[in-house]
Amino acid sequence: MSKRKALVAQSGGPSPVINASLLGVAEACLQSGQISTVLAAHHGIEGVLLEHLFDLGAQPAQELELLMQTPSAAAGSCRYKLKDSYEQDYRRIVEVMRAHDIGYFFYIGGNDSMDTADKVERLARQMDYDLKVVGVPKTIDNDLGDAQRTLIDHTPGYGSCARYWANLIRCVGEENRAMAPSECVSVLQAMGRDSGFITAAARLGDPNRELPLLLFLPEAGHTAEAVCDHICDGLKRWGRVIAVVSESLMSDADSHKVDGFGHVEYGASRTTAMQTVVNLLNSRKLPVRGQATGQVPGVLQRSNAVDASQVDRQEARALGHKAVELALSGHSGVMATILRVSDVPYQVRYDSVPLHKMANAARKLPEDWIAPGGTDVTDAFLRYGTPLIGDCVAPYECQGGLLRFAHLDYTEVPRKLPAYVPCGFETE
Amino acid sequence: MSKRKALVAQSGGPSPVINASLLGVAEACLQSGQISTVLAAHHGIEGVLLEHLFDLGAQPAQELELLMQTPSAAAGSCRYKLKDSYEQDYRRIVEVMRAHDIGYFFYIGGNDSMDTADKVERLARQMDYDLKVVGVPKTIDNDLGDAQRTLIDHTPGYGSCARYWANLIRCVGEENRAMAPSECVSVLQAMGRDSGFITAAARLGDPNRELPLLLFLPEAGHTAEAVCDHICDGLKRWGRVIAVVSESLMSDADSHKVDGFGHVEYGASRTTAMQTVVNLLNSRKLPVRGQATGQVPGVLQRSNAVDASQVDRQEARALGHKAVELALSGHSGVMATILRVSDVPYQVRYDSVPLHKMANAARKLPEDWIAPGGTDVTDAFLRYGTPLIGDCVAPYECQGGLLRFAHLDYTEVPRKLPAYVPCGFETE
Repeated sequence: MSKRKALVAQSGGPSPVINASLLGVAEACLQSGQISTVLAAHHGIEGVLLEHLFDLGAQPAQELELLMQTPSAAAGSCRYKLKDSYEQDYRRIVEVMRAHDIGYFFYIGGNDSMDTADKVERLARQMDYDLKVVGVPKTIDNDLGDAQRTLIDHTPGYGSCARYWANLIRCVGEENRAMAPSECVSVLQAMGRDSGFITAAARLGDPNRELPLLLFLPEAGHTAEAVCDHICDGLKRWGRVIAVVSESLMSDADSHKVDGFGHVEYGASRTTAMQTVVNLLNSRKLPVRGQATGQVPGVLQRSNAVDASQVDRQEARALGHKAVELALSGHSGVMATILRVSDVPYQVRYDSVPLHKMANAARKLPEDWIAPGGTDVTDAFLRYGTPLIGDCVAPYECQGGLLRFAHLDYTEVPRKLPAYVPCGFETE
Repeated sequence: MSKRKALVAQSGGPSPVINASLLGVAEACLQSGQISTVLAAHHGIEGVLLEHLFDLGAQPAQELELLMQTPSAAAGSCRYKLKDSYEQDYRRIVEVMRAHDIGYFFYIGGNDSMDTADKVERLARQMDYDLKVVGVPKTIDNDLGDAQRTLIDHTPGYGSCARYWANLIRCVGEENRAMAPSECVSVLQAMGRDSGFITAAARLGDPNRELPLLLFLPEAGHTAEAVCDHICDGLKRWGRVIAVVSESLMSDADSHKVDGFGHVEYGASRTTAMQTVVNLLNSRKLPVRGQATGQVPGVLQRSNAVDASQVDRQEARALGHKAVELALSGHSGVMATILRVSDVPYQVRYDSVPLHKMANAARKLPEDWIAPGGTDVTDAFLRYGTPLIGDCVAPYECQGGLLRFAHLDYTEVPRKLPAYVPCGFETE
């Protein structure tokens, strides 16, 4: 049997490690000796439809190896939604495969992509075209799969996003402590649509619960008013608060846009969840001095190359290898998956699941990982999430994989003067 | 003469390296043998007024050393504005110094802090109290000083913020390239009030001008409409655009808040400059497919511990040393400063300048560092900024101090089928 070609495509939003999966697929194909050429679609499924294909396997080995530290989607991505009614599109995909003698199609993406891959696989069989289709999971949201984690333990991309949030919350913790007299509440908005895995990841930066940190998980269903009430209670207890709100917490539904997939595009909201909470808080009389300020952490949470999780990088690459192994051993209509063997020591194994099981598996945070009150996660989440963020690679003093910060003792030296009210306090 | 005490305070917004200056002051005092105790004010000048002082010198040496990798302001900061009319406050400060036998006062901050330090120094002399006052500069904005750089070359904090932006723009460059079919314009909002140094720093991430990058420096005075015109021109040329806008570019002046210093608080704006530009762009018919999206990079640009500039860290520490050296050799009413000796090899020297010269020295980007058209900086800025961002510390392949990313060759393999218009394109 003559060797056939492989085609790989990336889809949807970027992640810091989707290119590690691209590398994994490419190198496993090249090393197999069973594949003649490794093509990539330029800009995902759009690239397939438009026949924009380039030779990934022919790139210099050194450039391919750099994919391990290159964020985003080096083959190009797209947000094209292949609706079920687009029969012509599906047929075109199979025709493109046939025209280029593609024997193996690897599709790296989230649940929409797994749905597309599944349909392509079925149609190819129907059209009597020999094509092995294997999916490779990715999404920073970790919302692909089932709550019991029988389909997949976690998606590549989540570990790096969680690491970003763990670091961020520690840095914001330092800011919040330093600036508390003027900025007593720091509100941070997390990605993740209706799934709280990213919001929850903030807790990985403070596993011993030393920060005045409140997590408003979307699964807990707080209103913006309830969020503000919780924050005011926190101010009474701690004097300052760091609050992480999910992007899906919104009072201003009119400001939403919906994308081609029917998903709300929170990134394009005219009023963000953060702004809603900050405005509401600053319209109240807070129980302590200072005001609320907010941040919507940006693209670095999904494209942070400098401090991506090493565990995540290696797993993303390994899933690329697994996908090729599955295809070459005759599997099709499956997704390469990662399942957990143990938390301590952290061990995983790679396996496969049918694509159709992943196509609409939208995972939420399991109920028993949400602490009573809905403003924190339980230790079960810490056991799950901690291994995913990996270790420090920079030559700094670290603890739990994160930079150690100085802890000063603020015990006051005895005062020698009568109490004093600064002039500026009187006008506050 | 019996040994006297030193007091150090931090003021204003955080930076990734203000704690390195705190460490520099503390260790130089401790090593001098001429100072009995090193106190720190808890929360800046508020801590002095309220007599909230703690013994910084008595902290474990290991915790002090960790200040080198701890962001924000470990002694606590504040945004209290000591107005000229607050005579009682100034008098109180000198009384607190006298009550604790403070002989040396080190104040780490921006131009408002240098103004305060200058006034405290004068009043102490007037009240016949022997006090050496030395300022230590900090601000991520780099807007402290004169355009000719005779007073100071750059402020500690700027190098790390510039490094954050250089990395960010490279990651956004990858995102923008990958997502161009759906997200053709990435708008990023930079801090820096009316001074373009942070906006300019984005160019340090793309010194060879390979990205479709437009910088809207506040000094160039673009309107939001003009920004959109430039971006549309860029779309025609490159097919996609990354635009960095200064936070001070605003069409919606009503949404501004003003802080106690009379400065506009862009962070608390109800409509950001980014949002203004994105909304305006998306209301136009863009010359290519896709839409504009935006980001307001957050607190990590001023508190990024993981990837702060090593050059910046070392200089911030050295300025702390210099301040103590100045005070112990009898100087007062001065600020420790850093002046450039040469760009290549990068060399600086430490010196002093009178505090009163710094008090109101608000620096803008020099005119000859702004490229014609006002959407880029000149190479003179690159020569200035490049050494400040330092090198990679993580074990990755780097180039110019930043991570190297894979550059793939997207040359298409020959198409074999007739052109095709995907079903979804027809509804766009």
